[in-house]
Amino acid sequence: MIRVAVVGVSGYTGLELLKILLDHDKFEVVYLGASENGGEIENTHPSLKSLCELSIEKADAKEIAKRCELAFLALPHKASMGFAKELLELGVKVVDLSADYRLDLETYEKFYCPHEDKEHIKDAVYGLPELYKDKLKGAKLVANPGCYPTATILGLLPFLHLLDENYPIMIDAKSGVSGAGKKCTEKTHYCCINENLFSYSPLSHRHEPEIKEKFFKSSGKEFDIAFVPHLLPLTRGMLVDSYCLLKKECNPIDILKEFYKDAPFVRIFEKPVDIKSSSGTNFCDIFAKRDGKKLFISSSIDNLLRGASSQAVVNANLMYGFDEDEGIPKYAYVP
Amino acid sequence: MIRVAVVGVSGYTGLELLKILLDHDKFEVVYLGASENGGEIENTHPSLKSLCELSIEKADAKEIAKRCELAFLALPHKASMGFAKELLELGVKVVDLSADYRLDLETYEKFYCPHEDKEHIKDAVYGLPELYKDKLKGAKLVANPGCYPTATILGLLPFLHLLDENYPIMIDAKSGVSGAGKKCTEKTHYCCINENLFSYSPLSHRHEPEIKEKFFKSSGKEFDIAFVPHLLPLTRGMLVDSYCLLKKECNPIDILKEFYKDAPFVRIFEKPVDIKSSSGTNFCDIFAKRDGKKLFISSSIDNLLRGASSQAVVNANLMYGFDEDEGIPKYAYVP
Amino acid sequence: MIRVAVVGVSGYTGLELLKILLDHDKFEVVYLGASENGGEIENTHPSLKSLCELSIEKADAKEIAKRCELAFLALPHKASMGFAKELLELGVKVVDLSADYRLDLETYEKFYCPHEDKEHIKDAVYGLPELYKDKLKGAKLVANPGCYPTATILGLLPFLHLLDENYPIMIDAKSGVSGAGKKCTEKTHYCCINENLFSYSPLSHRHEPEIKEKFFKSSGKEFDIAFVPHLLPLTRGMLVDSYCLLKKECNPIDILKEFYKDAPFVRIFEKPVDIKSSSGTNFCDIFAKRDGKKLFISSSIDNLLRGASSQAVVNANLMYGFDEDEGIPKYAYVP
Amino acid sequence: MIRVAVVGVSGYTGLELLKILLDHDKFEVVYLGASENGGEIENTHPSLKSLCELSIEKADAKEIAKRCELAFLALPHKASMGFAKELLELGVKVVDLSADYRLDLETYEKFYCPHEDKEHIKDAVYGLPELYKDKLKGAKLVANPGCYPTATILGLLPFLHLLDENYPIMIDAKSGVSGAGKKCTEKTHYCCINENLFSYSPLSHRHEPEIKEKFFKSSGKEFDIAFVPHLLPLTRGMLVDSYCLLKKECNPIDILKEFYKDAPFVRIFEKPVDIKSSSGTNFCDIFAKRDGKKLFISSSIDNLLRGASSQAVVNANLMYGFDEDEGIPKYAYVP
Repeated sequence: MIRVAVVGVSGYTGLELLKILLDHDKFEVVYLGASENGGEIENTHPSLKSLCELSIEKADAKEIAKRCELAFLALPHKASMGFAKELLELGVKVVDLSADYRLDLETYEKFYCPHEDKEHIKDAVYGLPELYKDKLKGAKLVANPGCYPTATILGLLPFLHLLDENYPIMIDAKSGVSGAGKKCTEKTHYCCINENLFSYSPLSHRHEPEIKEKFFKSSGKEFDIAFVPHLLPLTRGMLVDSYCLLKKECNPIDILKEFYKDAPFVRIFEKPVDIKSSSGTNFCDIFAKRDGKKLFISSSIDNLLRGASSQAVVNANLMYGFDEDEGIPKYAYVP
Repeated sequence: MIRVAVVGVSGYTGLELLKILLDHDKFEVVYLGASENGGEIENTHPSLKSLCELSIEKADAKEIAKRCELAFLALPHKASMGFAKELLELGVKVVDLSADYRLDLETYEKFYCPHEDKEHIKDAVYGLPELYKDKLKGAKLVANPGCYPTATILGLLPFLHLLDENYPIMIDAKSGVSGAGKKCTEKTHYCCINENLFSYSPLSHRHEPEIKEKFFKSSGKEFDIAFVPHLLPLTRGMLVDSYCLLKKECNPIDILKEFYKDAPFVRIFEKPVDIKSSSGTNFCDIFAKRDGKKLFISSSIDNLLRGASSQAVVNANLMYGFDEDEGIPKYAYVP
Repeated sequence: MIRVAVVGVSGYTGLELLKILLDHDKFEVVYLGASENGGEIENTHPSLKSLCELSIEKADAKEIAKRCELAFLALPHKASMGFAKELLELGVKVVDLSADYRLDLETYEKFYCPHEDKEHIKDAVYGLPELYKDKLKGAKLVANPGCYPTATILGLLPFLHLLDENYPIMIDAKSGVSGAGKKCTEKTHYCCINENLFSYSPLSHRHEPEIKEKFFKSSGKEFDIAFVPHLLPLTRGMLVDSYCLLKKECNPIDILKEFYKDAPFVRIFEKPVDIKSSSGTNFCDIFAKRDGKKLFISSSIDNLLRGASSQAVVNANLMYGFDEDEGIPKYAYVP
Repeated sequence: MIRVAVVGVSGYTGLELLKILLDHDKFEVVYLGASENGGEIENTHPSLKSLCELSIEKADAKEIAKRCELAFLALPHKASMGFAKELLELGVKVVDLSADYRLDLETYEKFYCPHEDKEHIKDAVYGLPELYKDKLKGAKLVANPGCYPTATILGLLPFLHLLDENYPIMIDAKSGVSGAGKKCTEKTHYCCINENLFSYSPLSHRHEPEIKEKFFKSSGKEFDIAFVPHLLPLTRGMLVDSYCLLKKECNPIDILKEFYKDAPFVRIFEKPVDIKSSSGTNFCDIFAKRDGKKLFISSSIDNLLRGASSQAVVNANLMYGFDEDEGIPKYAYVP
């Protein structure tokens, strides 16, 4: 059993990590960290009552290094890199769920802030298994992708070489509210979200550079992207709809099936995907349809699982050479 | 007081028509029609208890002609044209909420079925007041626009002459479930919609030709359109997000404000619109943003009001020369 | 036109007051007050864009006295009494939506805090029109009832004299989230409420003494009450289910119909009431059923309207001798 | 591995059975039955795509007897007993999720219809493990309890001997819509449920006799019960609030903790329980509070799991002497 720490355990992705790891056959959670001592975990997450005996400790890298081989960091962007650096220097492997190691240094500093761990960012592996499975094996630092980039990239990747680059890719993305985190704000107030829908940060969301960079690395091409995220009146799940132009006509379902024929956590549907069939699982469900050269791609994930915590555990499975699907949730929250 | 009939009163748009007309100062509802005798209206719509004494009658054109000058038809597509024809021949004016008179004959027959009222379809006025206010004055037959076309056209109209026609307009539309009607189906089951989102009829929805035809009539140009509707987990409201390419850069907010400076039921917002601020009203709220030549337009309406019943009463107001906003709901269902 | 102020206009009940008063034929809103200057009202309530030209001012009693005859106070409990006192001394009439004048002095001080306006609390009229219509005519200070007491009292009032006093009345009350106010808290976070239900303050909610006191004043009897409120996963509306024991068998529907035969805003249903049929209106819808001596009563209101703002305007109508239903919303937000 | 059949697999409880059994270490699903041949399971339940290779067969008892030792019947009331009888006579053990074997013959025939399997109903074990764990071991026919009775009985059971029998037990129960089944009806239409709440069959629901009978068998006392169920605007989960009178004062939390000290699937909370913390699990979460002699008990379960499918698998575990919690879901769908 690999002894692991979950740091940032009081948030939603921390909870999801715990729910997967507590019953995992290869990882044993021995440390729960947060910004403050938090007492029993059931005070923070009542649904874990009777399921976990551990208490929440004020996160301390040295203490983690004493007890654990691997740490999952579910910390806010910017807060994560300092902590990851310390852990890595102490020999602890890290799966980082923040944005801090997802981008090239230059891109990161352009869209976020000066980076505090220039040494390790170079070696971080971008944790999208369908793209970097080989590099993930044996990795010491994995940068877990954002939820929007995960769904967007998986949908578009098989088509990049077929697209007319003169036309931008238009991405209309919709996320459940849990993606906005546990913090209470005007935008997460029930009355603001319920019976409502709106876009936010249209054409200027920070996940846009993450998508562009990964497209460039995969295809060698710089695509023009319009990315518009929305908050949906539901708790979990994400649907990303992409609109683009093909250079020539093709059968998009065939292309998807061929591209993902060996991917255990991508499912290709021949009718429009919905959010519910992937909620509660690590699956990315994809549908695509063409009309002339216009191509529509719709991909669905659970924003907290495939978009964060279950993908993190898949990455950890790969780091240690375990089966990719070891302990990973597959059965959706349907109905 | 103009005596009016509401035919198809048992559905959602019939109910909304009643809610507006029962307190209208210029129209008096004297006839409620449906496919069968239905007894007291409160049996069908319990929320109208104590508010309306009329009973539902099996719809009969001759009877309507005896008692009414004007009829609102909230009937299914295809069923409407036969009834409208009979009414028109008996001298009753008609506001038709179905698709039957919205398109040119040729387009209609291509996408629907053979038309049964070739005589009147020629003279039907498309009831989008921002486009055809002059023709609506004195009209005898108004074809009330669909909800998707209303929101889409109002958002894009001010920009049509500025768009690069070499590229398609990509339209990602999201509707509340009430748009699917009162009929119980697998798709309207609570458990199918709640905590879910999916597209339907992507790239092949019947509202696509309606939008194209009106764009052509307004601009003289044939735009290529990709239209993808979605069902949202909410009852009422609609958000239409359009993505297109401009020929050259411009300030989209200025363009919208100028275009709609005299439109009492269009509001231009400088931050993303939401669904709730227009729910319960006849407003179409519009936001737009540009990045380089990429243009994003977001427009919001209440699908049952601006997308059907309140727009129908605005059209009736205009037919009779009343104030456009006479009796029209303006205060949203916020919070 | 009576010139009125709305103080506390940035909250939900403030917004609802405005939506009713802006189109009222007898009241003219000339002053919007809040704890701080707030600029144009549409900054605070975007849905009011183009509907109200007034700006929000830091609430000042002297300024209100200069411009207004009547003030609606939608302020927090405890904050309201100081402001009301000042207004009353300056000759401004007050409809107070807080708890500050609802109880007898002694009861108030037991459950809240020392009272700062002992002079006026004696003369405040409890604004439940079905109970105190005569006293409301000409009143200078109206204490608008809470939402829970409104629905509870209206449901139970007709039966009080028939109840077996040896047994408690058990009240299971369910409220939409808007009742918890606009403030962002853990309990109003979307993810806490959505797909969830829970009781809060069971057997110890502050509305319990309000209900008991009014029962005593109406019936001369001290009933034992168990009151348990719940937060529902919906924005507006309230259902209160009461369980009690009768002294002898009776026909509860007949009793309700007789009791409310002259009440324009109470509707008696012969099948279970729902929340939606009263949402958006001032109606209280009531259903009751008996099994042996066990009596079940279910009453539904819109918590923000009949439970606050529309009832406040009804009270103002009565104060000035206007028609009780002048400008009061009657058409529900169905579907 | 015990070979099992799931009959009635196209409904919600059938799906939940599959989700549990497909990964169960001791049971192997080898037969999927429904009223008609249904092809691949993913046609009926798209979320099972890639997770189950079996096809749906027209249910046939002889065929099941050839292949299986145990059958789970998720069939409608009345349809189940004929099928169960045939299976039992062929030597197949049965866990029946319908109402057909839950009651004594006489009670069943009074509230449902003549019983077709008078032979086996005598020996059926009521599958509430906290009550009948011993009898379940080795049982051949288990009658799985209804969802309302499960939550109600578990909440009240520890207090029955302490209650004042002169006063009825008032039960205000609230269920998610999935409890109404997959069939599309007026009541399950999204627009009927969303933003709404209502009771149904108040004081006359069929689960009332089930509760009464089990109370009598446990306590020897005939309690008078008022049972009022409601439909909540959420998909899954159930909260049952019970109101009763104690003979004398006591500490309800202590009583609950003592009573359930050995029950692995009952959790006692010291603050009000919510629905979400048990959704997705087999837990029954219980809270209770006393004021004088008035006692309030609130119990929460997942209506499809503890109220149906996961309880059915717990019962099967017990029948075969496996660990009670073998393969049973424990981690809630929070957030």
